[in-house]
Amino acid sequence: MTKPLRLGIAGLGTVGVGVVKIIQQKANLLAARSGRPVVITAVSARSRDKDRGIDLTGFAWEDDPVDLAKRDDVDVFVELMGGEDGPAKDATEAAIAFGKDVVTANKALLAVNGQALAEMAEAAGRVIRFEAAVAGGIPVVKALTEGLAGNQVSRVMGVMNGTCNYILTRMQSAGLSYDEVFEEANQLGYLEADPNLDVGGIDAGHKLALLSAIAFGTAVDFEGVTLEGIGQVTIEDINQASELGFRIKLLGVARLTGRGLEQRMTPCLVPENSPLGQLEGGTNMIVLEGDAVGQIVLRGAGAGEGPTASAVLSDIMDIARGYRISTFGQPAAGLERATRAQVAASAPYYLRLTLTDKPGALAKVAAILGDCGISIDRMRQRSHSGGGDAPVLIVTHKVSGPSLQDALAALPRTDVVVGQPVALRIENI
Amino acid sequence: MTKPLRLGIAGLGTVGVGVVKIIQQKANLLAARSGRPVVITAVSARSRDKDRGIDLTGFAWEDDPVDLAKRDDVDVFVELMGGEDGPAKDATEAAIAFGKDVVTANKALLAVNGQALAEMAEAAGRVIRFEAAVAGGIPVVKALTEGLAGNQVSRVMGVMNGTCNYILTRMQSAGLSYDEVFEEANQLGYLEADPNLDVGGIDAGHKLALLSAIAFGTAVDFEGVTLEGIGQVTIEDINQASELGFRIKLLGVARLTGRGLEQRMTPCLVPENSPLGQLEGGTNMIVLEGDAVGQIVLRGAGAGEGPTASAVLSDIMDIARGYRISTFGQPAAGLERATRAQVAASAPYYLRLTLTDKPGALAKVAAILGDCGISIDRMRQRSHSGGGDAPVLIVTHKVSGPSLQDALAALPRTDVVVGQPVALRIENI
Repeated sequence: MTKPLRLGIAGLGTVGVGVVKIIQQKANLLAARSGRPVVITAVSARSRDKDRGIDLTGFAWEDDPVDLAKRDDVDVFVELMGGEDGPAKDATEAAIAFGKDVVTANKALLAVNGQALAEMAEAAGRVIRFEAAVAGGIPVVKALTEGLAGNQVSRVMGVMNGTCNYILTRMQSAGLSYDEVFEEANQLGYLEADPNLDVGGIDAGHKLALLSAIAFGTAVDFEGVTLEGIGQVTIEDINQASELGFRIKLLGVARLTGRGLEQRMTPCLVPENSPLGQLEGGTNMIVLEGDAVGQIVLRGAGAGEGPTASAVLSDIMDIARGYRISTFGQPAAGLERATRAQVAASAPYYLRLTLTDKPGALAKVAAILGDCGISIDRMRQRSHSGGGDAPVLIVTHKVSGPSLQDALAALPRTDVVVGQPVALRIENI
Repeated sequence: MTKPLRLGIAGLGTVGVGVVKIIQQKANLLAARSGRPVVITAVSARSRDKDRGIDLTGFAWEDDPVDLAKRDDVDVFVELMGGEDGPAKDATEAAIAFGKDVVTANKALLAVNGQALAEMAEAAGRVIRFEAAVAGGIPVVKALTEGLAGNQVSRVMGVMNGTCNYILTRMQSAGLSYDEVFEEANQLGYLEADPNLDVGGIDAGHKLALLSAIAFGTAVDFEGVTLEGIGQVTIEDINQASELGFRIKLLGVARLTGRGLEQRMTPCLVPENSPLGQLEGGTNMIVLEGDAVGQIVLRGAGAGEGPTASAVLSDIMDIARGYRISTFGQPAAGLERATRAQVAASAPYYLRLTLTDKPGALAKVAAILGDCGISIDRMRQRSHSGGGDAPVLIVTHKVSGPSLQDALAALPRTDVVVGQPVALRIENI
């Protein structure tokens, strides 16, 4: 095991640069820990001339990541380009075909193409590792696949997109609107090139789908994730939730029950005193529940050069140490897609509707909710300022999925409700 | 890798029974995840006839764990007996000598004899794994050794003894004295046979010494841990800390700096709004700080059948998957004991003293603190009820270790301070 482990790194953005720095600066430490030198032999990126603040002269350069993936002097292809297909997918496939192991930070690639790639890798006797694809520096893939290997996992939850959590907590602390904080986050460079990946919940949904697969031994099913972004959350929702003792979080929940696999990434109310409720800013938190271990909570930076590079190194070091494990913790060929549980279990809900200023408007709403079997815990109507429309805020008792859907369909059909009501689940965790 | 992995389990107490149950009930799941059957071939415990609620008829029985460790049909010796020497040590040495890997939950054994055992195991090409020895079900050994393998770790902190945290939080919530809650914990069976292992901080100190070794790449040095139990913490300290916005925790801190390795397990004040401050009851929490990853917080059950068995299974499954790693994350033969940093870095302190009812008593105390270079942030003197002694509570500004030691030595030598002052460090984390 004293032969060097030779890396080819494709993608020299923030994370790629972070990985190069660690390998250059900690050569002795990494060799002491893994028992062999870990070296970079070749790199690839879009622009060769860009100044990245690191010395690349010792590495071969490839313009095409596919060529990098095929090189004889590369043992591990480190894919840090991103994108669910295109060059990232082509190069990963080439790497596997040419007998390389793969380490990737690419959640989109694996959430969409992970099953096929894993089967290909396992048929070829290669591993694909993806610690950096979920929750940045938090070693959650390892915790779930290895640390909880003796558990039947019942539920995985978490805040997995730091940008959304930054926006939501910043709205609350500064009393700003969603649009104002969105613009602020954009200026700060916190948003993806396509912001909907963040605020639409897609990025976090990719992560949840990956965690589901390893938690429950099911084929990754990103299409099965109920996705709802944070764009509809208003400062009024946040303040109202706060008065009730809750915080609003973009919360991922995956559960496997007799009804099938439930996966959702939606804004939820969580108790302000819970670990999730107290999570401020860009930090991530994952909650794992297993039949033996009970509840494990993991918290750390979900993005950024250092944390993500730390996770990439975890995978590289495992490979250097000779660890071999199936991509999703058990052979991909045997993984099946679970039935999708369409109807979430009962929960209390927070509803916000806008009422026109007509006599009996509130009574009509109450009647519809009653007809749908929804009982009201608390209700508050703001004054009609200047006789216009007015928001009504309702907290329900536990309501089943179908009842809620019925009510959400019926309310806009009345002549007193303006627009579509907002319904946020209350997770009492 | 389809050959079964054959276990010999020594010790059938709470944890041993938990391990047997998981292996019996989840045979298919474990085989799917590890790629091979995981089976128990033989067991050993003090009493063969005791009803443990599990079926042992399929396993060979050994009265002597050393005989179990030597059996030809055992690949992994699972040591769940406990004790820093005696049968646990004898059997572990026998297992290594007879070519077995070892999985243990025994923090005392490894904190005291870990360096020698690791060297022996590595010379024989065997592994010793000990996830269950630290923080129960929290996969912290794995997170640190593997998940953070690309990091220079700067600090490890945590609440690692659930019994102490139960006692401290119960004192606060119920307003009871230390002695009352100690008795309660004893009745509930929360205390070790020798309670000083818990409340004296020894058990937690063992854990901290193990985490230090893997975090910093130093030889385990339990003797170098500054140990202070919780027996001196009064309900008054807890209430006073609370008024100041703090909670009292038995906190472990290990840091490697230019001054050497600092390891302490002592009652500290931590901000009530910090993750550590919010930790209630028997839960454990570990905070890991690395140069790349930043701060990672791990939280979960630190003891109990399920959580500890979950950690034992993590190690067993790693071995079943073919993972081989040095006991402390790098070859034991190269590990050296770090210089002990005797003097802790500066910090504010909470002081409690008892003053006699003499004129000028408080002035004398203030003068001594001033002479030692200690400046006072806040001071409170309770009334002398009936003219007797009275407690004085002081919060200092940052004070260096030597200044504090000088003051703690000088104060009892006056004629106004009764007994030994209590000094608790304030950790602003």
